[in-house]
Amino acid sequence: MKAAIMGYGVVGGGVGEVLIKNADIIEKKLGEKIEIKYVLDLRDFPGDILEDKLTKNFEDILGDDEVKIVCEAMGGTKPAYDFTKRLLEKGKHVVTSNKELVATYGYELLNTAKEHNANYLFEAAVGGGVPIIRPIWQCLAGNNIKSVYGILNGTTNFILTKMYNEDMPFKEALALAQKLGYAEKDPTADIEGADVCRKTCILASLCFGTHIAPEQVATEGIQNINIRDVAYAKANNCEIKLLGYSEKLDNGKIDAIVSPFFVSKASQIANVSDVFNGIVVNGDMVDEVFFYGRGAGKLPTASACVGDMIDCAMHDEKRKNFGWGERDKDFVQDCKERNTAYYVRGEGNINEVKAVMGDVNFLALQGAPLNEVVFITAKEKEKELDEKLASIKSYEIKAKIRVL
Amino acid sequence: MKAAIMGYGVVGGGVGEVLIKNADIIEKKLGEKIEIKYVLDLRDFPGDILEDKLTKNFEDILGDDEVKIVCEAMGGTKPAYDFTKRLLEKGKHVVTSNKELVATYGYELLNTAKEHNANYLFEAAVGGGVPIIRPIWQCLAGNNIKSVYGILNGTTNFILTKMYNEDMPFKEALALAQKLGYAEKDPTADIEGADVCRKTCILASLCFGTHIAPEQVATEGIQNINIRDVAYAKANNCEIKLLGYSEKLDNGKIDAIVSPFFVSKASQIANVSDVFNGIVVNGDMVDEVFFYGRGAGKLPTASACVGDMIDCAMHDEKRKNFGWGERDKDFVQDCKERNTAYYVRGEGNINEVKAVMGDVNFLALQGAPLNEVVFITAKEKEKELDEKLASIKSYEIKAKIRVL
Repeated sequence: MKAAIMGYGVVGGGVGEVLIKNADIIEKKLGEKIEIKYVLDLRDFPGDILEDKLTKNFEDILGDDEVKIVCEAMGGTKPAYDFTKRLLEKGKHVVTSNKELVATYGYELLNTAKEHNANYLFEAAVGGGVPIIRPIWQCLAGNNIKSVYGILNGTTNFILTKMYNEDMPFKEALALAQKLGYAEKDPTADIEGADVCRKTCILASLCFGTHIAPEQVATEGIQNINIRDVAYAKANNCEIKLLGYSEKLDNGKIDAIVSPFFVSKASQIANVSDVFNGIVVNGDMVDEVFFYGRGAGKLPTASACVGDMIDCAMHDEKRKNFGWGERDKDFVQDCKERNTAYYVRGEGNINEVKAVMGDVNFLALQGAPLNEVVFITAKEKEKELDEKLASIKSYEIKAKIRVL
Repeated sequence: MKAAIMGYGVVGGGVGEVLIKNADIIEKKLGEKIEIKYVLDLRDFPGDILEDKLTKNFEDILGDDEVKIVCEAMGGTKPAYDFTKRLLEKGKHVVTSNKELVATYGYELLNTAKEHNANYLFEAAVGGGVPIIRPIWQCLAGNNIKSVYGILNGTTNFILTKMYNEDMPFKEALALAQKLGYAEKDPTADIEGADVCRKTCILASLCFGTHIAPEQVATEGIQNINIRDVAYAKANNCEIKLLGYSEKLDNGKIDAIVSPFFVSKASQIANVSDVFNGIVVNGDMVDEVFFYGRGAGKLPTASACVGDMIDCAMHDEKRKNFGWGERDKDFVQDCKERNTAYYVRGEGNINEVKAVMGDVNFLALQGAPLNEVVFITAKEKEKELDEKLASIKSYEIKAKIRVL
């Protein structure tokens, strides 16, 4: 079966490498080869093993009836959305690692795929090489999914791990991540949570059956995490992790949020270190299941894309039943309505804090300044907690982090 | 779509419960209902919600063309093999939680399914509710799998956890497991490793493409694990876990073994406690991925069966491409040829041990008797290690455990 790769960067290059290196294994499993007929990229790659497949013209792929499967590894929505839509309309299967595209236009593109009896698969868009989309959709299909959350970004998890294990300040850890190639020159999308937000949208849409778009999910990154808060976490058998979290509420709405969280060291999620990803799914029948592995990187991400391409080849005649419902602006609950416990660090008078906040759990740290007052609140609506905290006149908040 | 359940015990009852309780979710996903038309069991269940579906006659199911999907939750190979074969020959899809049947007759039954354009799925046979079969087969399809291993039995893991956390002797921990319903009255199949062996066979067959049968896998249980060895493990930042392990060797053969292992506390697998299961898959492209969750129990196991039933309904017209090659008696390497490091505890003269074993890593434990000599060997062929150990005249071996 003939295939094409669009975008010959890290992931696209990895897909080429996996298809060539494991051609025998794939052919044995599939009963036929997957042959790369085109690689679309505007750049030249002199001497590359796939140099003779390179084209700068998308129409070559679109117009070639032999090409049945296309791996879109371009990233972004322009021109990826347009290209993907036109390929699906021609009945070609598309697999992608492009989380921005799936999070933004997943509903539309899955519908286009359905209308034209094609597959649109995106195992690589969440968790990189970690199997998560198919396990949720197929293996857990008999469950009413209650929540899905996890560490979905390796760059920020690497930084938080350095801060935790080596008491390294945020800026230094970020610089190290950049030096090692884990963070990009402009790390905004990772650090400020946009990448996690897109993945959270995809997981929530899949689990809860309605398209959830990035702008519906309150998103906070790790740029303000202070080494002092990491020390408090450590002293209290917790770790600070950036989570993409979504949960089905009793009122039928979804709580979806991207935020740093205090998590117990005893949890599976706290054992996810460095650039690894870890995802917890809670189903009413299966209880808690946990998936862990490399959430990014050339070959792990390519491994997921190639798994999807093989699945497309196996299901060439019959599409997979993937999909979810149309966007609903009221589906996600306002974050301020969320029931949250906060970790709060600030300076002021402990008695005034007690007077307003009541029976909170005060945390101590050896050598802390006398006027530093740190505590974990009870679970309450965020709106109400924020109002209470603001009403403590003498208390200046330095940090406020949600507790899982 | 009409379905039947064969065997109305714990798992079969759970499948009924999941299909009834989550009927709406399943119908929404599938576009049609899965209706239970028959429940096969020789017992009566007066007052049961599915009482009117009960039959004692297998032919009712076999002869009813409306029944497209059958969940076999009988266990054992007789009459499960015969029933499954006849159902597949009629083109009916069969899903199962029966690891003994798949480990013993998987190759034959998968071939029968293929010949008659039916599906034979067994997500529930390994890892209970934990998605593992489909992720390996589909998501990791682009990988050359190098190894797959894990904690595959909740009963023994519960016992080992109690021994580790509470210094509880084996017999006491087993009695507690029986009291809590985690272990059966006759716990032999769990304790001595037969259950783990079956699951190891299924994982290895799936990953390495050739049917591996239980009698090909050297199997050791946990019945001889002494609380003293647990103490040594603890003092050396290790834990003792019963693993089902298989690995593709450079010589093309498979190393497959069921055995207690010393594992580092820093590993993902050491964090799998109580009745939980955890499985590590190593692929050449994806590196290490880890799956964790409830490996047994009514609803988690039923959740996996129902996921398979939904998949069958989605693929009614086209079978899944599951399968592996015929048994090959030379495919699994003799365990004695295995490269292993041993933990060894015994009594004797340390100088004689040193003279024979060379530069081994001696372990100390506070309060140990003077003549207790405990060490971890270098990695060597088991045959050679065993010969060396036997040649230390003054040294009496009390315990010998493999190190991961």
